[in-house]
This record gives sequence, C-alpha cells and structure tokens, in this order.
Amino acid sequence: MKNILIATLATTTLLMSASLKDEARNAGLLPIPNNKAELMKLIDNPRNPITDAKAELGKKLYFDPRLSKSGLISCNFCHNLGEGGDDGVEAAVGHKWTANPNHVNSPTVYNAVFNDIQFWDGRAKDLEEQAQGPMLAHPEMAATSEHVEKVVKSMPEYEAEFKAAYGKDVKITFALIADTIGLYERILVTPSAYDDFLNGDKNALNAKEKEGLKTFIDAGCVTCHTGYGLGGAMNMFNITGTYKHMDVGGFKGDKNGMVRVPTLRNITQTAPYFHNGKIWSLSEAIKEMGKIQLGANLSDKDVASIEVFLKALEGRKPEVIYPMLPASTEKTPRPDMN
Amino acid sequence: MKNILIATLATTTLLMSASLKDEARNAGLLPIPNNKAELMKLIDNPRNPITDAKAELGKKLYFDPRLSKSGLISCNFCHNLGEGGDDGVEAAVGHKWTANPNHVNSPTVYNAVFNDIQFWDGRAKDLEEQAQGPMLAHPEMAATSEHVEKVVKSMPEYEAEFKAAYGKDVKITFALIADTIGLYERILVTPSAYDDFLNGDKNALNAKEKEGLKTFIDAGCVTCHTGYGLGGAMNMFNITGTYKHMDVGGFKGDKNGMVRVPTLRNITQTAPYFHNGKIWSLSEAIKEMGKIQLGANLSDKDVASIEVFLKALEGRKPEVIYPMLPASTEKTPRPDMN
Repeated sequence: MKNILIATLATTTLLMSASLKDEARNAGLLPIPNNKAELMKLIDNPRNPITDAKAELGKKLYFDPRLSKSGLISCNFCHNLGEGGDDGVEAAVGHKWTANPNHVNSPTVYNAVFNDIQFWDGRAKDLEEQAQGPMLAHPEMAATSEHVEKVVKSMPEYEAEFKAAYGKDVKITFALIADTIGLYERILVTPSAYDDFLNGDKNALNAKEKEGLKTFIDAGCVTCHTGYGLGGAMNMFNITGTYKHMDVGGFKGDKNGMVRVPTLRNITQTAPYFHNGKIWSLSEAIKEMGKIQLGANLSDKDVASIEVFLKALEGRKPEVIYPMLPASTEKTPRPDMN
Repeated sequence: MKNILIATLATTTLLMSASLKDEARNAGLLPIPNNKAELMKLIDNPRNPITDAKAELGKKLYFDPRLSKSGLISCNFCHNLGEGGDDGVEAAVGHKWTANPNHVNSPTVYNAVFNDIQFWDGRAKDLEEQAQGPMLAHPEMAATSEHVEKVVKSMPEYEAEFKAAYGKDVKITFALIADTIGLYERILVTPSAYDDFLNGDKNALNAKEKEGLKTFIDAGCVTCHTGYGLGGAMNMFNITGTYKHMDVGGFKGDKNGMVRVPTLRNITQTAPYFHNGKIWSLSEAIKEMGKIQLGANLSDKDVASIEVFLKALEGRKPEVIYPMLPASTEKTPRPDMN
C-alpha cells in the first residue's frame, strides 16, 4: 500500500512537472540551450563570429581601466562580474564621481546578449553598439574614441593580440575595440536550475520552486518577463506604469515613454531594482510590479512563491580568470583626473 | 678550432654565470625560493597561518567594493592585480574622487610581503596592519570599522566562509577581516627569470640580462634595492635625496624624513615611479636615482643595461580566478556616495 502510494505520488509529480514545463514553454519562456552548438548559434554575432582569441582579448579590454580618461574606470567597474554583473548601487557613478544624470541603474551584463536591444531606453541595437556608449559618456569613462585607440595601440601586446584575433592586416579602431568587448559580453550567459528544468531535467527544480514558476506564469509576470532572458524586450513596459503611476525621476524612457523589460536572471544578486534603482527588497519589487504593471495586489503567499522561483534563476557563472593586462608604455596616454 | 672556441666561450659563460650568482648573493640579493615549503616559511604569518580557506576568503574581501562607504572601491581598485598590482596613476584617487592628500603613489601589492614594513613612511608593521588603513582612510575607501563588519556579517555566505576558515566560534571583527585580506596578499609573490637564475638555472638570464645584473650591482643600486624584494627596507632612503635634492611635494616621509625603498619586482609594469609618481619613464627613473641616491651620472649604456635587467624581474603572477561575491542582503548597509 505504501509503495503504491509512493508510486502514485511519483507519477503525479512527473505528470505535473511535464505539464509545467510545457506550460512554461507555451507561455514563451525559453531555456538557455545545454547544447553548446545550439547556444553558440543563439549568442553569436554573424558580423564578427566568436573565437577564443577574440574573447580573451575582449576580456582584457573589458577589465582595462586605462580605456577611461582617468585610467581608473573599466567596464567591470559598473558591470562587476563578481557582483552579479552590475555595481549594486542605485545609479552609476563614474568619472569625477559623477552620478548618472538620468539616475538610471546599471543593468547586469550577464545574459545581456538575450536583450532585444541595449540600454534602458533601447537606444543601442546590440552589445557591440552598447559598448561604445559608456567609454565616451562623460559621467562614465569620459574618454574619446581617439583616446581609446591610442591606449590600445600604445601597447605591443594588445597589437599582437588584435593581429592574432583578426589577422595581421587588422586596423585597430574604436569600433573594433567596442566590437571585441561586446563579443566578450556575448559569452557571459549563466544557465540555472530553471534552465535545466526547461531542458528536461524534472528534478532540477524542487516542489516550492515549481510552485513559484506556476505562480509566476499565472500571475501574468510572464507577459513581459519572457523569452531567453525573462525580459529584454522593448515596447512592453510603460515607464510610468500601466496600472499605477511610478515615480521615474528625470528619466523619460524612449520616445514613447517606454523602458526595456529587465532580465530576471540573477535578480537575487542585482539589487537595487528598477531602472531607477529605488527598490532594494526583492519581495517589495515583486509586489510593486504587480500593482504597477498588472493592476494586481499579489498576496504575500504569491509574492513569496515568486521569490522562491526567482532564486532558482541564479545562474552558473562562467569562470573568469582575471586578466593580466599589458604594461603601459611611454606612448600610453597619461591618466587625466579632470 | 671553431669547436674549441665555442667550448671555451661556453665554459667562460658558465664560470661567469656561477660567479655572478655568487656576487649577487654576496651583495644581499635573495631569490624567491622555488621550493614551496621554503617559500611558505618565508611568507607565512605565525600569528595566523595561511590556509586555502582563508586565502580564498581573503581574495573575496580583497575584491569586494562593498567594504567601502560607496560600495564602489575595493582594495583591487588601487592595487589592481591585472595592472602589476597598482593603479598606474601618479597618486591614488578614492572616495568622492579625492586625490591622496600626500600625493603618494600606490605601491604594488605583489611581493609586498617582502617589505620589512608597509606604507611609504613605514607606519604599518605588516600587511595585516596595512590592510586596515585604506578601508578607513577618507580619501580611499572611507569606511568605518563598524561598516566593514556590518557588510561582512550581513551575508550568510561570508559568515559560513569565516566559520570554515577560522572555526565555528569565530568572531568576525574588523581586525580579522583585515587580517584575512593581509593573508591573501601574502601569497601574491611573483618569481621571475631572475629568481630562477639565483636559484641555480644558469640559462634563466641571457647575456644582456646578466650584464645588466652586474651593472646593477657595480653601480651600487643594490645598496638599497636588496633582499628578497630588491627593496622594502626603511631607513635607507632619504626622501629629499642623498646627493641631489628631490622635490617631494607635501609628503614628509617618516619622522626622520625617510621613505621605504620600493621593490623593483615588476617595475616595468608599475609606472609612474617614485613615492610621488612623478617619473613615467623607467630609464629616466634609473638616471634620477643614480644622481639623487648615488651621486653618480650613470652613462646611457649603464642605464640601458640596468633597464634590461629590471625587465627580467617581471614575475609569473599567481593565476587569479575572479571571485563571485556573496549577494547583498536586506541587512547589508546601503552604499553612500557622500
């Protein structure tokens, strides 16, 4: 009798899991492929295909503070790979301790490849285009394209690596430097227990997490937080709120007053939340989104259940061997703090 | 005949190498041991012996910007392990973009364990004591000891790691946090071709490098740049110069007007030079030191020869796997930019 009961329970769980997976897939949720070739097809850039040599070079550039005017601020300063891919502050602070003038929160670089477009207002079409922005923005790295090119070209090691990556006739331009950084960012994807579940491993999520996924779907979160990134699309998320007015500060979103839906991957590691970084508690963020975007007063139970699911989106980060950067030479532009 | 000549030359080189090694050792130059047990004996701290668990935890703390008031400045910000262990700027810039008030240059953390004392004015006896300074200094990380303790204790992952490293009854104090950072810094040693040569590998240095080492010894550089670190001692280096007045800005050195002799290891990767970071060219730095401290006008040939030798001090850096930091919790003190 006991054995039959266990067998029945097991079958029920199996069926429930199977159907939950289908339900998630039908709701538009997509897992990071566990097949490498399939993943590469998804994240690669046909214009500049990923190779190990380019990625290794891109990593160095990503971590190199000398690309900034001061010599102190690298891409990793605001998109810290050790901190869930962002900086953990409300709004970015950059050159001369200048706060982001729109008071917008630095989005995580992890899984940013799954965003349809880049920046909160979607003004860059891909990671390569995005990577140019912060280098030139005065409140961020405050450099000029000439500065960035000069820095890179001043070091024979960088020159050699560009040749190894792109061929001996390569022309090292600001655009190619940004392309190489963007290329590195493409490989920063973090598959999680959630992906394993959607890829067919029925036991990858526990009962509570499955329940949370169900709540997430049923409550309607999945309307915007969908696709590979559980977010990443434009034209879905009215910045001032659909059902409740949201205080957006000085930021206006795109020309239609929209902001990009943020990814929920690694969300437990990327407080504070929202484009303005004003909410520090994840449960509060869930509750607020219910009110603002769904017109729903989510119960504490539902909020807690969704939070358990979101925790299962914590991904396995690629191992990053900290790059030893080429030494500056006498040709390297000197840091300028002003 | 030709063969005899080659054999004779080889023997001469061999003899010269053997005696050069002895000469270097007699002049007080000491290699980083290539025997692990011997190295550990040299770098360990009997008060808090090095273990893998402590070093791994120390690495996380070293890279964690949340120990600072702003949440943006880690130890690695000024002592960047990818940039030869320093920041590549004249004088450190920290919290609120404040320049170091004494305009002193950030010393490299690599091989700092070989310094007799820490800081340019030698005010800290070891790395553990040194590590406390920048966390509390307002122009650097601008934290308080309470802030640092609160940050660490707010994350269960850190608590668990402290327990794993120091036992379940561990009391996480500011001093222990600094001790753990200092412990991590102890293992940041970088053996080089020069060490291989002093350890007996006659071919580790080429003829030009051997010539450079000989010039380095004969010119008298070795008087101050000696020991394991080729530098690191106090009470040798009069800040205003022994033979020529040196412009030292506002910095006064220790109570006797002395500054610590900097290490020459990885010197090709740590421009700008001197305690005030005022010299960017290595050959110029060598020439200046000749004038200031030796009262010698080194010839261009000697300067070039010494520079070749210094290049052979570029060390093999320990591989650093970039740490994935524990996620902040709602108890973690919020970043404060002011």
